Amino acid sequence: MNLSVVLVEPEGPANIGMVARTMKNFGFSRLVLINPNLTDESYSYAVHATDVLERALVLEGFEEALELFDLAVGTTGKPGRGYIPARAPVMPWELRETLKGYSGSVGLFFGRESIGLKNEELERLDFTVTIPTSEAYPVMNLAQAVAVILYELSKERPEPAVEALKPAAREEKEHLVKTWAELLEVMDYPKDSERREVFVKVFRRFVGRAVLYGREVHTLIGPLRRARLKLEECEDAER
Amino acid sequence: MNLSVVLVEPEGPANIGMVARTMKNFGFSRLVLINPNLTDESYSYAVHATDVLERALVLEGFEEALELFDLAVGTTGKPGRGYIPARAPVMPWELRETLKGYSGSVGLFFGRESIGLKNEELERLDFTVTIPTSEAYPVMNLAQAVAVILYELSKERPEPAVEALKPAAREEKEHLVKTWAELLEVMDYPKDSERREVFVKVFRRFVGRAVLYGREVHTLIGPLRRARLKLEECEDAER
Repeated sequence: MNLSVVLVEPEGPANIGMVARTMKNFGFSRLVLINPNLTDESYSYAVHATDVLERALVLEGFEEALELFDLAVGTTGKPGRGYIPARAPVMPWELRETLKGYSGSVGLFFGRESIGLKNEELERLDFTVTIPTSEAYPVMNLAQAVAVILYELSKERPEPAVEALKPAAREEKEHLVKTWAELLEVMDYPKDSERREVFVKVFRRFVGRAVLYGREVHTLIGPLRRARLKLEECEDAER
Repeated sequence: MNLSVVLVEPEGPANIGMVARTMKNFGFSRLVLINPNLTDESYSYAVHATDVLERALVLEGFEEALELFDLAVGTTGKPGRGYIPARAPVMPWELRETLKGYSGSVGLFFGRESIGLKNEELERLDFTVTIPTSEAYPVMNLAQAVAVILYELSKERPEPAVEALKPAAREEKEHLVKTWAELLEVMDYPKDSERREVFVKVFRRFVGRAVLYGREVHTLIGPLRRARLKLEECEDAER
């Protein structure tokens, strides 16, 4: 995704650094700063993302920034009473859908900590996005708002680092349920076969809800299978 | 949702305040602090959420906190190589599904800024959640991680403050498309009726993608309808 974060006249040096950090956390690197209050503190708060700050494009005017993008999206706090319908903001997950497959350059504009984006700036943007927040305290910290939106735009399940973290396939989970059923069978417990089926169903739901991983399934099957084999041995011995 | 945020030995006073703020932003108020480095700076960074800090439960031990909850969920950075499969973390959106309709008390445990949650702490928790981040820089700022997870757990489209912000109903959008089709009809443009249908289809897709609001639809229908009526008048006059 060809996306830049644009901070319009950010006031807090620490916030600029925290935004750079969160960008790198979510794999974004293009930062545009309009009249920023950029200090050593910014670099300190960027921690391991000073490279994002160093490569940031520093501009003096809003219009200059606007010209960089095919699509310019603004961010706003919660719409209040005097809200202008034409600017009805989309939700972050709707922005995600809108940008899916979009190949143009996108600028995501965040306003000043104190007053956000000005009306004349909002009018120049294509549309706005807002994070749904509580009426009791709708205004978020700048870097946290950036974090939430970049999270939403980039989120997907990461490739598992190790084989063990592959989600369990349906057949693996079925194998686990079958092993459980076999154990009940060999114990003849519960005695009533219909109740036994209910017990298996409950186990199946439990497996479903637990979001199991491949190796975990095998770690569960092992002991159940062993218990069943042991019980069979006992029975044979008794006979 | 009966959910508490638990900060385990948070080191940065500013972070504690920022966490309180983000909690209030997303409508959460129960904060548990274990051996926190709580200072005046924390209150200053909480801005309008000092009430969350004032009502926070300050504890000395991890076990004490654990006893408060029916379900204790930990947060971890990205799983590395030595990762233990049994702790395979769920994604934030999976946590959302897991907690849907759950009525027990939930504690969401966040570790220290420096080293996170210790292994012996992770072992005592029911399961862990992780935010998918970039390999290049996976470690997020504490308050930003809290923001992302609380956003995911609480997100839903807010009730529109004004009528104008109600999303356009399907029939309203159909009305808009029909008005467009009528305009093309009266102009006999494009001449070929099959091509005209294509033009209508393109308009319909455009309407669909734009995520329109109720009043916006009427603001678009008005001029189109007026243009059609004007054109009909012209034609009548010419005849």
